[in-house]
Amino acid sequence: MFTITTWGESHGAGVGVVVDGCPPLLPITAEEIQAELDRRRPGQSDIVTPRNEADAVEILSGVFEGKTTGAPIAMLVRNADQRPGAYDEMREKFRPSHADFAYQAKYGARDHRGGGRSSARETIGRVAAGAIAKKLLSAKGVEIRAFVARVQDLAIPETVLSEMPFPSPAQIEASAVRCPHAATAEAMIERIKEVRAAGDSVGGVIRCRVHGVPAGLGEPVFDRLEADLAKAMLSLPASKGFEIGSGFAGTLLKGSEHNDAWISQDGKPRTATNRSGGVQGGISNGEEIFFNVAFKPTATIMLPQKTVDARGAQTELTGRGRHDPCVLPRAVPIVESMAALVLVDHWMRQNAQCGTFQL
Amino acid sequence: MFTITTWGESHGAGVGVVVDGCPPLLPITAEEIQAELDRRRPGQSDIVTPRNEADAVEILSGVFEGKTTGAPIAMLVRNADQRPGAYDEMREKFRPSHADFAYQAKYGARDHRGGGRSSARETIGRVAAGAIAKKLLSAKGVEIRAFVARVQDLAIPETVLSEMPFPSPAQIEASAVRCPHAATAEAMIERIKEVRAAGDSVGGVIRCRVHGVPAGLGEPVFDRLEADLAKAMLSLPASKGFEIGSGFAGTLLKGSEHNDAWISQDGKPRTATNRSGGVQGGISNGEEIFFNVAFKPTATIMLPQKTVDARGAQTELTGRGRHDPCVLPRAVPIVESMAALVLVDHWMRQNAQCGTFQL
Amino acid sequence: MFTITTWGESHGAGVGVVVDGCPPLLPITAEEIQAELDRRRPGQSDIVTPRNEADAVEILSGVFEGKTTGAPIAMLVRNADQRPGAYDEMREKFRPSHADFAYQAKYGARDHRGGGRSSARETIGRVAAGAIAKKLLSAKGVEIRAFVARVQDLAIPETVLSEMPFPSPAQIEASAVRCPHAATAEAMIERIKEVRAAGDSVGGVIRCRVHGVPAGLGEPVFDRLEADLAKAMLSLPASKGFEIGSGFAGTLLKGSEHNDAWISQDGKPRTATNRSGGVQGGISNGEEIFFNVAFKPTATIMLPQKTVDARGAQTELTGRGRHDPCVLPRAVPIVESMAALVLVDHWMRQNAQCGTFQL
Amino acid sequence: MFTITTWGESHGAGVGVVVDGCPPLLPITAEEIQAELDRRRPGQSDIVTPRNEADAVEILSGVFEGKTTGAPIAMLVRNADQRPGAYDEMREKFRPSHADFAYQAKYGARDHRGGGRSSARETIGRVAAGAIAKKLLSAKGVEIRAFVARVQDLAIPETVLSEMPFPSPAQIEASAVRCPHAATAEAMIERIKEVRAAGDSVGGVIRCRVHGVPAGLGEPVFDRLEADLAKAMLSLPASKGFEIGSGFAGTLLKGSEHNDAWISQDGKPRTATNRSGGVQGGISNGEEIFFNVAFKPTATIMLPQKTVDARGAQTELTGRGRHDPCVLPRAVPIVESMAALVLVDHWMRQNAQCGTFQL
Repeated sequence: MFTITTWGESHGAGVGVVVDGCPPLLPITAEEIQAELDRRRPGQSDIVTPRNEADAVEILSGVFEGKTTGAPIAMLVRNADQRPGAYDEMREKFRPSHADFAYQAKYGARDHRGGGRSSARETIGRVAAGAIAKKLLSAKGVEIRAFVARVQDLAIPETVLSEMPFPSPAQIEASAVRCPHAATAEAMIERIKEVRAAGDSVGGVIRCRVHGVPAGLGEPVFDRLEADLAKAMLSLPASKGFEIGSGFAGTLLKGSEHNDAWISQDGKPRTATNRSGGVQGGISNGEEIFFNVAFKPTATIMLPQKTVDARGAQTELTGRGRHDPCVLPRAVPIVESMAALVLVDHWMRQNAQCGTFQL
Repeated sequence: MFTITTWGESHGAGVGVVVDGCPPLLPITAEEIQAELDRRRPGQSDIVTPRNEADAVEILSGVFEGKTTGAPIAMLVRNADQRPGAYDEMREKFRPSHADFAYQAKYGARDHRGGGRSSARETIGRVAAGAIAKKLLSAKGVEIRAFVARVQDLAIPETVLSEMPFPSPAQIEASAVRCPHAATAEAMIERIKEVRAAGDSVGGVIRCRVHGVPAGLGEPVFDRLEADLAKAMLSLPASKGFEIGSGFAGTLLKGSEHNDAWISQDGKPRTATNRSGGVQGGISNGEEIFFNVAFKPTATIMLPQKTVDARGAQTELTGRGRHDPCVLPRAVPIVESMAALVLVDHWMRQNAQCGTFQL
Repeated sequence: MFTITTWGESHGAGVGVVVDGCPPLLPITAEEIQAELDRRRPGQSDIVTPRNEADAVEILSGVFEGKTTGAPIAMLVRNADQRPGAYDEMREKFRPSHADFAYQAKYGARDHRGGGRSSARETIGRVAAGAIAKKLLSAKGVEIRAFVARVQDLAIPETVLSEMPFPSPAQIEASAVRCPHAATAEAMIERIKEVRAAGDSVGGVIRCRVHGVPAGLGEPVFDRLEADLAKAMLSLPASKGFEIGSGFAGTLLKGSEHNDAWISQDGKPRTATNRSGGVQGGISNGEEIFFNVAFKPTATIMLPQKTVDARGAQTELTGRGRHDPCVLPRAVPIVESMAALVLVDHWMRQNAQCGTFQL
Repeated sequence: MFTITTWGESHGAGVGVVVDGCPPLLPITAEEIQAELDRRRPGQSDIVTPRNEADAVEILSGVFEGKTTGAPIAMLVRNADQRPGAYDEMREKFRPSHADFAYQAKYGARDHRGGGRSSARETIGRVAAGAIAKKLLSAKGVEIRAFVARVQDLAIPETVLSEMPFPSPAQIEASAVRCPHAATAEAMIERIKEVRAAGDSVGGVIRCRVHGVPAGLGEPVFDRLEADLAKAMLSLPASKGFEIGSGFAGTLLKGSEHNDAWISQDGKPRTATNRSGGVQGGISNGEEIFFNVAFKPTATIMLPQKTVDARGAQTELTGRGRHDPCVLPRAVPIVESMAALVLVDHWMRQNAQCGTFQL
């Protein structure tokens, strides 16, 4: 129902998004959207890519006198700091663990400059749309907080993580790495600087927590809430895994240890624990929704690697261009945005089926 | 393009599926579909639920003189061994870690008998459709093998798992638990019998491997191949996590350790390693596709649990009915079916966009 | 949002439908659905096909204790009076103005028995689903009435038609031809009997009127309400045209003659005339929605016709089997059903976008 | 498969479109797209609106080194000649037979300037996308020609129309009214000038003919080729009706007069007549596809009309702004574009289902 269409390449004219199905009468400004884009933009700190992009957004349609009209909202970000020449070598050589070869095999052509369509600049559109979705959810009392829970082996201690109160935006933004646990954040930043200095890269895990989702969102079979969240997260560049609630670790428990007992709180059913992660049978149960997303180490590294060229000959390639040694800090607002888009969509679906005809 | 619509409840008239968009001229018989259904049916071994269901399938449409016509294929399985009376208590009480409460919150009503629509009997339709998808893929040389890689903490040793040749159907079906590593399978079966005797349950991990997928399947942004696989797997009852290729473990590596170098083999690019899991940038790269799916311990256990009733009062519930102490053995064909459905759909999409107009 | 999936062939095991997205808690019985099916079933009068089909419907899922649960509703009608042998000649010869050749060209195969999938028996599923949609709309005060306005050149006089009060079901069902103007109905029935006696057939126009639709349903661009109605009507077998409001005749007027002036009625805007047909800019405006659908004369006639066989040789074919000399009487409930399905879907969409987040 | 997403308002920043699913490797330039836009742009002749818009298109993505890459193609047209002040009166008053009231009822808000989203400027995106679709079809030998067949009561004589050879683009573009019959075109232009001088408007009928479509495109039930064409045409501003082949007039014939006999031509089945309009059972049969679209007289007229204001009070309104006295000349390329979009999409679908797995 709430759909987004993104377009654009890393080194083309720009990138953008069209948001279709947005509820009318939502007050929204370019500044609010810009604030979210600033959280994912390059050059925001000394542990991310130095590509110099303001990523300034223009709202082209769908907003009139400060409010949404219900018409499609088109948003445009022009590319500024393009250095396509930096990619000449990639025209002929497939970068390891990048999409170059797969695109070539699929389409018989590709825009090689900075990965073209496969560049993470595509996610600008998602974050711009996500800013609108987050504002809609906020009007319903729903808050979404993603943060970096682990970089390589440096993790927020499990006991801290499981007991952590719902973090504030300020706590997350307090460190450049967007980890709300200060000691861990410091170590993570150190590690990222080390691997960057070595021309290498690291990955890790982002946790996302969502407060305030009422029971009843999600479809029971194919479009389960966790299925759509999983799809949304695995659609992000560099993501390799998703787990909700107890996830992979929960498979080590017995049913008697794993089940969330129901307790009565003010006459309403609540779960004593939350290994379900806020979703049961594909449908939200009113508890906190939380999930983890695994991001692999950035594929672009400044070290020589074996590869093959377009003619099939063995060759070597050393990364150039400007890249993130670790994508996680900038992926935090993207994860939040995708979660918001999924939730708004499911909220609309739920209201369409169960709220239209009062029977 | 290749879509399925399932319907049915655990203790209603039956369950079924409509397959839309199936290519014409595929030879298919009810027996071939039945063979896959027999792999997921209850009562097939002494470690699964004893519910006595033949799950006999009837093809109602779309097949004429032994071949598909291109019209929708409807398939019906009547429910036989219904004991709705066994579920009277569930009418009033929400089972822990089941969908009962979420359904009630969403719809304001539910068929409480055996979980109604939330029952895993819904997956019969998926397996029936998957049998058709697997046959289509087989005509292209694609084979899909899922198997149980871990039950609770009992796992195929990592070195065995990573070096294991592509298993044959016979190797997988050799044990009731569908683990192709005999020693591990034996321990798994022992464990499942133990927890069943204790009225408890266990979960674990299924690995799925796919051979023969050509480079080029998958869409670059939202409908990445791994995103649609993740959605398909998280849409399964009891699944809590998905990881492709190196997955969560891969986040512990540096980029220089993780990247899949390109090597030239017979003049064609191949990867030296396969941490990508056969997908790069959302698109298959011609290597083996493999992924893991986490399944939680069965929620129904034969032990007393705390719960709440429909009026919000605290109460207790002890599982009844007939249930699997471990869903993984029967989930194996379901995982294969969902993978097949995703692949057929993406193959059609790829051919639609890149094969229709020869430019 | 409210989607239907139909399946089945004329001379296969049966035909059916799955309704997805139905609101929960709607009281519905097989008898209510049967009542609508009886309006389209063969053998209901002496001016329709004598094929002897009770078209008895079985609800297989989605209804529990007399009410919808929100789960998919599967409905099945077994074929009874099959005479596939009557169609042996069609295996080799393409019937003029039928789908035989087009199916063969598309799929490379076809079930030739009675047209297979192209048979109007497919519309059973639409009428069964439409019965549910009509009941939902009825709860909102919306009533849909289709009737036969013209058979060949025999039409309800234009002045009568334009001034006619909203007809009751009884007025429409009063004649076998479902024309609420008695004199015209009598002439129509006479004509249909004449052409049947001559082995020939006739077509005509069905008008559909809808009362009680509130302003605001319909999407502004591609999914305009009239666009979706047009698609729904042109998806019916034998339909060749659609016009809403003033339609083709309105193109003869000047803007000053055609425009619907706004008048204030009880402080609310109403139109003085209704040449818009209740839809403006793709969106309902609260006035009566009305449209016409053209149905061609039945393609099957009992006269010798020139045709070609599967090998491309010229030959001749004389219709056999049991057919309607005029499809319109039985198409009336189908038109109503399709209109109801479109309206329910748009109502849900409207509520999803504009009713979920109260801003 | 080939989807378009349009956005933009009449007096906002601009209008645009994103084309998703375009086949790769199609050579396309902004000039080719501009050529189609120039056929629909304002100010192109003295019988259309004098609004001064160059409608210059910018391709923002999806084209690399002169060819499509398979990635989304975003196109942008900035609005230039905005005179929002000309619409101040419409902020408060609902224009008769316009979408103003319906939008207000649906969304609770609207951009009143020039109709906002309901403006026909929205169709710029469709024509830009249609230019790409037409080029794709052209590579397959498919040509689409729409032209004005009737303005009010001034029609190309029926015998001329039915015998007319497939018109060339030059024949259609020869007159400002885009009617390839010179004498009729002259009268039409005269009439349009007359009604404009009187502050009034007229409508009429556009015929569209398509050559070269192979047999087999279209889906058999809901997505029939004629159903999707009908939807596409009824989604156009001011359209009120659609008929394919013999259409409404065909309902006056008997089956024996109406049926298209099959004849063998070079061993292949062809129809002796073409009352089916190139589609049978929802699927193209290889004959010429032709259909008519009815467009009502332009709602905006320069004469005083009765209306109601936002507070429900009776008032009067006289049209201002710059408008077409007859939309048909500029609607010709729009009709062609929509037909092209439908055909490309169905071609892809056909190839997906019937061309992917060679069985």
